[in-house]
Amino acid sequence: MENNSSPATGLQPIRCRAAVCRKPGEPLVIEEIIVAPPMPREVRIRIICTSLCHSDLTFWKLKDPPGIFPRILGHEAIGVVESVGKDVHEVKEGDTVIPTFMADCGECKDCLSNKSNLCTKFPFSVSPGTPRYGTSRFTDLNGEVIHHLLFVSSFTEYTVVDIVNVTKVDPAIPPNRACLLSCGVTTGVGATWRTANVEKGSTVAIFGLGSIGLAVAEGARICGASRIIGIDVNPEKFETAKKFGVTEFVNSRTLGDKLSQAVIEMTDGGADYCFECVGMAFLVEEAFKCCRQGWGKTIVLGVDKPGAVLNFRSYDVLHRGKTVMGSLFGGASPKSDIPTLLKWYTDKKLELDKFVTHEVGFEDINEAFNLLIEGKSLRCVIWMNK
Amino acid sequence: MENNSSPATGLQPIRCRAAVCRKPGEPLVIEEIIVAPPMPREVRIRIICTSLCHSDLTFWKLKDPPGIFPRILGHEAIGVVESVGKDVHEVKEGDTVIPTFMADCGECKDCLSNKSNLCTKFPFSVSPGTPRYGTSRFTDLNGEVIHHLLFVSSFTEYTVVDIVNVTKVDPAIPPNRACLLSCGVTTGVGATWRTANVEKGSTVAIFGLGSIGLAVAEGARICGASRIIGIDVNPEKFETAKKFGVTEFVNSRTLGDKLSQAVIEMTDGGADYCFECVGMAFLVEEAFKCCRQGWGKTIVLGVDKPGAVLNFRSYDVLHRGKTVMGSLFGGASPKSDIPTLLKWYTDKKLELDKFVTHEVGFEDINEAFNLLIEGKSLRCVIWMNK
Repeated sequence: MENNSSPATGLQPIRCRAAVCRKPGEPLVIEEIIVAPPMPREVRIRIICTSLCHSDLTFWKLKDPPGIFPRILGHEAIGVVESVGKDVHEVKEGDTVIPTFMADCGECKDCLSNKSNLCTKFPFSVSPGTPRYGTSRFTDLNGEVIHHLLFVSSFTEYTVVDIVNVTKVDPAIPPNRACLLSCGVTTGVGATWRTANVEKGSTVAIFGLGSIGLAVAEGARICGASRIIGIDVNPEKFETAKKFGVTEFVNSRTLGDKLSQAVIEMTDGGADYCFECVGMAFLVEEAFKCCRQGWGKTIVLGVDKPGAVLNFRSYDVLHRGKTVMGSLFGGASPKSDIPTLLKWYTDKKLELDKFVTHEVGFEDINEAFNLLIEGKSLRCVIWMNK
Repeated sequence: MENNSSPATGLQPIRCRAAVCRKPGEPLVIEEIIVAPPMPREVRIRIICTSLCHSDLTFWKLKDPPGIFPRILGHEAIGVVESVGKDVHEVKEGDTVIPTFMADCGECKDCLSNKSNLCTKFPFSVSPGTPRYGTSRFTDLNGEVIHHLLFVSSFTEYTVVDIVNVTKVDPAIPPNRACLLSCGVTTGVGATWRTANVEKGSTVAIFGLGSIGLAVAEGARICGASRIIGIDVNPEKFETAKKFGVTEFVNSRTLGDKLSQAVIEMTDGGADYCFECVGMAFLVEEAFKCCRQGWGKTIVLGVDKPGAVLNFRSYDVLHRGKTVMGSLFGGASPKSDIPTLLKWYTDKKLELDKFVTHEVGFEDINEAFNLLIEGKSLRCVIWMNK
């Protein structure tokens, strides 16, 4: 895109601390880095807090492309605008903002439509640079480039994000709650509200009771689902899941290939909505089997490996009138839907507190990784200055 | 189901003419048969006229199960109730009715819902008998059983149909138009109206410009689509298709594997709705590629071979926010939606005349087969008494 642009006059590089991932799977190293000034249409953000999402683990471990190192991970956060690049009119220094991996340019056919959240101008990408220039704003003290993650890179005191990836929010909302809407909770709640449009009184089945699955449960509860069936290999998750509105538990490990039969029987024909929140093609196919003929919808949230293929019997699609749909970021458009979800939080309709199981200081960021790997945390908030 | 039932008192078998398919792929033989009285909840219908649908050809040629012989084909028709079995209160002798392969029991969860047309109590089946008893009402003069097709079997002067497969209609509507709603036109128009809910101003791509594809075009036109793109291997079909509202033609044969690229380019990102009307898994996958990210819907109407599998890249479902849905009988519920479509016809909103390219007498029924096989007809109406 624009290549002949230069930073806003007078803005200087910032020297600050960042947790850098130098090698795949190795503990992050907190070190000093240089954050360049924002280029035109970019903003530099001081991160208040950030939370760890499972996708961070995926990119942390990824040896082959799109894995790339050194890199600053983190994509679920909230912060304050430190400075703005040229031609930024939407936010100003001091504004509280939530950065998102999804863009919302407000100009393309998708962003102008209420039906899509997939910006055509700045599409989703795992590229290691910024969306508009494809370059990095981070260097280490030796001058080596450090790569970005998902247009956010929040495991640093300062980051640079394009204006299309920034949503201005009410600063009065507790940052350790608001940051959850940057990715996970919006993905799960959005899938029920924006993608599937779950109807009151309906039966919802959730495949995978991780944070995304629990956010789907929270969304289904808000939409008024009367039965929310949690499906997981680990029955211990049911206790936690109950707090999120899950009413029944199905153990997919013990049922094995009788899973769909069991779900169909307990729902008298299948669930109205099935959400796959794990990211395994075979589980999407199981979910499809479990959804009701006539109007059943299977919603794919889980990210499988590149090239993964979903197989459905033509007969089951046609003769059973079933629907399969994808939901990236819950079908939510950041700039319009995040403020709505925040209002739901202040109205006590959306419960965010229960997602936060741990909070640590920045220097303990590797502990946040351990908690998630060990299955002990849902969301661990990492405070930059605590 | 009920096994201890007996025919209504006083009703006698009827001896009449039927076009019997004795061997797969061989010309039908018009012969005298015996039509038993209707069992409880069945009606015996005098067929006024019937039209030939492509599915009749499929079953005509089918050597292996569900192919079965001798059989009376035909499932798109209109007739007059000659007599009713016990416990039939919905229609009476002399009523004009449209039989359908889809049941509408009015009692099950599906039939009570506006979202489904897939009756749970009497599900779609290719069984050779009646839906309630699984037996035949037809015998030849040697006493040999003649099998039913799709719960209708209309290539006979008299047939017996279950009350769940019968829709009462206004007798004033020309029967050689009304009969089209028994299958093909409802399937195509319904897919746009009931299943996909095509929005005004949208772009529709239709894969296969046979009768079903043209009925989809007619439905898309009624829904207010601004662009209707016809895709077929035969460019000659475009002239006819224009009469059905098709605005552009794409030759899938000459484009080969560049088809989706071409459709995506001409629609600036893909069609809003893609309808697969041929019944080939690979074409469903092509349609899926051609539908727009963010909100594109691919609707499967074509019936592929049993066991056919649809493959979609998980990435394309999730990251492109696309939807795949099936549409049997256009998602239409016979007893509520056929009367609506007939009203659309009398209101000159739905144009049925252009579907009827030929009309023949019953004795020329094999000529109707030839016309369809040679691609010369869309719908050939076969009059029982002309």
